[in-house]
Amino acid sequence: MHIFYTPDLDSDVFTLSEEESRHCSKVLRLSLGDHVHLIDGKGGLFEAEISAINKKNVQLKIVHKQSDFGKRNHHLHIAIAPTKNIDRLEWFLEKATEIGIDEVTPIICDRSERRIVKEERLDKVITSAVKQSMTAYHPKLNPAITFSEFLNQDFIGARLIAHCMADAAKQSIDKLVTPHQSYLILIGPEGDFSPAELANALENGFNPVTLGNTRLRTETAALYACFEINYINR
Amino acid sequence: MHIFYTPDLDSDVFTLSEEESRHCSKVLRLSLGDHVHLIDGKGGLFEAEISAINKKNVQLKIVHKQSDFGKRNHHLHIAIAPTKNIDRLEWFLEKATEIGIDEVTPIICDRSERRIVKEERLDKVITSAVKQSMTAYHPKLNPAITFSEFLNQDFIGARLIAHCMADAAKQSIDKLVTPHQSYLILIGPEGDFSPAELANALENGFNPVTLGNTRLRTETAALYACFEINYINR
Repeated sequence: MHIFYTPDLDSDVFTLSEEESRHCSKVLRLSLGDHVHLIDGKGGLFEAEISAINKKNVQLKIVHKQSDFGKRNHHLHIAIAPTKNIDRLEWFLEKATEIGIDEVTPIICDRSERRIVKEERLDKVITSAVKQSMTAYHPKLNPAITFSEFLNQDFIGARLIAHCMADAAKQSIDKLVTPHQSYLILIGPEGDFSPAELANALENGFNPVTLGNTRLRTETAALYACFEINYINR
Repeated sequence: MHIFYTPDLDSDVFTLSEEESRHCSKVLRLSLGDHVHLIDGKGGLFEAEISAINKKNVQLKIVHKQSDFGKRNHHLHIAIAPTKNIDRLEWFLEKATEIGIDEVTPIICDRSERRIVKEERLDKVITSAVKQSMTAYHPKLNPAITFSEFLNQDFIGARLIAHCMADAAKQSIDKLVTPHQSYLILIGPEGDFSPAELANALENGFNPVTLGNTRLRTETAALYACFEINYINR
């Protein structure tokens, strides 16, 4: 059954946007009485029937509603330096959405070659992964922010930083966290965090973590952390 | 330090191919006496000094050798149906190489939309990930083979199949395997394995596994399995 992302769904009758109405009628060739799935991004999974349809306007009637669909038992926030090649960040967003993540913040670091990201485009990648993987919760993409500004914010839960510098204090994530809590993990740029950034993070209570024994790219490291947190919370 | 992949390295003096010599001299602008890293794909990590150099011919003298570099404590073989969009399979190969995998076989299944793969191109993706992640062991890419032919082969170790059909027998990988062994995991195409293929696999001693609670794309499922096996063997 086809899935539409309808974050502004607030009643038992819903009208698709003109763009989605056209997609529904012209591309999918759906017709009166057909059923579709709707996801509101807040845990709501709906089954709806097409109650009226024309090229520009498709009206849906909710016939079944499920709340807290696939509700997660923890909160994972990954702050990642945007990759030089933006495809790699988009790839991470797609995969992390499939596997399970709640919040992502692009952080601009001292050694970031890419200092600008188009949040709207990245959010579209997340939305299409939400639909594809039928995740009823839409991960939140925060605006890009500099690393130092980011550290000035308040966080609840476990604070972890993955860096490449030799560091005896590094431990694997499972040694540092317990299940069912909030986690914030910092992933640096291709050139790693600067020593000053690392020192700043440690002062702010972040624990250095190691992600396996191999040398991972930025987006692979971020996904590895995402895997591990979800694994710990299975 | 720059890394070259030299599978045919067999003495203390080595000459780069014309292509790599040009890359070394013209692109990297390296010169006499500079040091580089060599990886032979069989666990050998070498440090070499440029003992002679011109545009088409770079000669290297091994100054330090390390064997069994990053030797793995298990053997992971993933047989995966090539994705319709080949980029997704290439992406999996890159990421699996970074995280850790020993053998990959493209399997052509009943519902495979893509029935042809260019092994040479896929192997190049693996090689570049080997160099990038400094993995001294080069994962083996087997030629594509049909699912039924593949099942006729002999395997040692744990046999797992990840499918999307409802199946009470499905368990998570960690419930089915022990560390430090050989693992073979089957990952189906976008349309999943056919019931006949699943029955065939079960007859051949494969255990159905579940990969988390979310709906994963083919390449994401394969990487998830790769992550979990490596995690179990940390």
